[in-house]
Amino acid sequence: MRGFHRVLAGVLRQQRASSQKTAGGSAVRFCVKFSSSATVKSRIRPGYVILGAGLACGTGAVLYSAHLRKKTLAATLEPIFMAQPITNMATLQQASDMRSRMELLILRVQADVCQALEELEATEGDKKFLVDRWERKEGGGGISCVLQDGQVFEKAGVNISIVLGNLPPAAVQQMRARGKNFKTADGGNLPFFAAGVSSVIHPRSPNVPTIHFNYRYFEVVEADGTRQWWFGGGTDLTPSYLDTEDVVHFHSTLKDACDKHDKSLYPRFKKWCDDYFTIPHRGECRGVGGIFFDDIDEPSQEEAFRFVKSCAESVIPSYVPIVKKQMSRGYGLAERQWQLLRRGRYVEFNLVYDRGTKFGLATPGARIESILMSLPLAARWEYCHDPAAGSPEAMMLEVLKNPRDWVGSQ
Amino acid sequence: MRGFHRVLAGVLRQQRASSQKTAGGSAVRFCVKFSSSATVKSRIRPGYVILGAGLACGTGAVLYSAHLRKKTLAATLEPIFMAQPITNMATLQQASDMRSRMELLILRVQADVCQALEELEATEGDKKFLVDRWERKEGGGGISCVLQDGQVFEKAGVNISIVLGNLPPAAVQQMRARGKNFKTADGGNLPFFAAGVSSVIHPRSPNVPTIHFNYRYFEVVEADGTRQWWFGGGTDLTPSYLDTEDVVHFHSTLKDACDKHDKSLYPRFKKWCDDYFTIPHRGECRGVGGIFFDDIDEPSQEEAFRFVKSCAESVIPSYVPIVKKQMSRGYGLAERQWQLLRRGRYVEFNLVYDRGTKFGLATPGARIESILMSLPLAARWEYCHDPAAGSPEAMMLEVLKNPRDWVGSQ
Repeated sequence: MRGFHRVLAGVLRQQRASSQKTAGGSAVRFCVKFSSSATVKSRIRPGYVILGAGLACGTGAVLYSAHLRKKTLAATLEPIFMAQPITNMATLQQASDMRSRMELLILRVQADVCQALEELEATEGDKKFLVDRWERKEGGGGISCVLQDGQVFEKAGVNISIVLGNLPPAAVQQMRARGKNFKTADGGNLPFFAAGVSSVIHPRSPNVPTIHFNYRYFEVVEADGTRQWWFGGGTDLTPSYLDTEDVVHFHSTLKDACDKHDKSLYPRFKKWCDDYFTIPHRGECRGVGGIFFDDIDEPSQEEAFRFVKSCAESVIPSYVPIVKKQMSRGYGLAERQWQLLRRGRYVEFNLVYDRGTKFGLATPGARIESILMSLPLAARWEYCHDPAAGSPEAMMLEVLKNPRDWVGSQ
Repeated sequence: MRGFHRVLAGVLRQQRASSQKTAGGSAVRFCVKFSSSATVKSRIRPGYVILGAGLACGTGAVLYSAHLRKKTLAATLEPIFMAQPITNMATLQQASDMRSRMELLILRVQADVCQALEELEATEGDKKFLVDRWERKEGGGGISCVLQDGQVFEKAGVNISIVLGNLPPAAVQQMRARGKNFKTADGGNLPFFAAGVSSVIHPRSPNVPTIHFNYRYFEVVEADGTRQWWFGGGTDLTPSYLDTEDVVHFHSTLKDACDKHDKSLYPRFKKWCDDYFTIPHRGECRGVGGIFFDDIDEPSQEEAFRFVKSCAESVIPSYVPIVKKQMSRGYGLAERQWQLLRRGRYVEFNLVYDRGTKFGLATPGARIESILMSLPLAARWEYCHDPAAGSPEAMMLEVLKNPRDWVGSQ
């Protein structure tokens, strides 16, 4: 795993007027930028400016670097992560336990994906990710990175969160229903730890598909001190229009990542994905699938982690070539309207069925903006919309109603 | 109650190209128009054409009269209802039971509201309601009327449904949890009847509020033949911008309708409405409230019906004056964007919390398009949107976070 570097925690405060207001009462937002100190292998992100040192914490701190183009100290610094890690940096550096390794993995995946998207965005505009770093009173916190209203990406969110606390009896009960049996202490509470990265990328062009991925690690400590752990995650694609070559590339990349570990994984997790991302009331899948898994606690913690790492690292190669191929193709109003209708279905799935969203909305004190960053910037619901037979829209629907085997694995 | 007239069931079939397609593969939809026969007091709806007689049934039949402006037979006909009633017309005419009276009430309320909205729309454009009449294999059916993409109304749905069948044990269980104890036969099934009108009107202008209303009658027949019945319903308003005068007019009209029956009703049902239409994860109400009630089975069936009738008849006077006052006021992009964000919250409430929507989506064979006609044509989700202090948007939010007593009744 690539090392990470002590955060200098340089803080830049910038005020900007809210883009919502056309006149009068301009909203002011304080923007804070975290960056890490320089060492040897500089990965330079132009436009980052380090103004000073000091511990930057601040729940809800916002990074905003879009208008910063001066190269001062930045050229010699390496901001590997999007913000200061949630766990104390010295602890993370020294530890070799799975909690720390997972936090380092998701911090790196988040930064890599954000950088890859910003590079795509840079060819068209200059939008950068806004970074919110937040802390939970109860333990842990997160880093939410959102790029909104870009030229290539209409709304892209890449979030990580580290959550420590006690699972309430209702959540324990829910997990029991999934086959997990925990020995709880008096009162039924169960100390737990969860670390994950979660992302939804909605591009502007109807020709570029939406991607979602999520990789997470869970640990509970039972009353007798036994530590149970498992991984979950997945990556899936939601196009508005079908380009078979793109979908085959996407699935092949995920299959390769799985096959390195066990040839049985891809077929199993591909089916799990099709089953999970369905909208029963529409009789449709949300998209063209990918992989999805949960409760992975074998063959060993080490091997499970390596598998999850392979999957997380396959996100960029599975998606970026598709964006590059499609992002400059033209489209008209009809294609945009169809995309917005499909985005409406995305909203339906996420609000009505997605376990993570439902759990998040029902959790008191949860960070709603991070949970709902998965929703598209714009969506539409037309009454009784029905694409013409043989149209590209109807061809897309046909695939959503009948999931395909894209790489001849089943 | 105003009489109704035997439906001639004139059928007009018209093909129209789907508005979604700009070129190629034009979608063809068969459009069927139901109308009623003429008698004495003609209430003429210009633009309606009767081409022939015959029993028009057809699930999913669509009325589309927007482009029809010829006055032929229409001038002498009176289409009181939007389509042929669900129950056999002769039965309805002769019966005096509550099922029939409720069906007649909701048929008339639907037609009155559709006509009132079409009249408002006619001053700006010429959009008419599309009518879908559908039948359920298991018994009953419905009439869905939707006006979409009008000049005044962006998406307006006024639906009625009559549902007959057996409540499955899970639904009986859910009702028991609400305090209803039914004596069920073997297997736990319970014969039931439900009749209701349900409507959501989303105007185009951010200055014109969205309105929702729903009035319903429920009956179950227990194992020993006992018939239990109750009414439910309500009307509520969701503005994007606060006009206190409008909200006071709206609440006063509802209060007057309630006060005619019992002075204690409005305060009770106003609070019930504020409590029901909340979005807990946002800490906001969906709108500025109105009235909401359920399980009304006293003081008598007759009096409960008369109360529901008063409420349903107060929809037009509570709303139309507000539309007339606001519909021609100008607005800009900023106001439209704010409205779309508020529509996003509307979607969140309806998909995550609304009992009727959740029940509908979970019902196999339910007519999804009728259930989801409540969703706006367009909605938006911006990350961390936060209106500037003192702005009209912030003033609206303040009221949504802290429901007010609008008519000094509490």
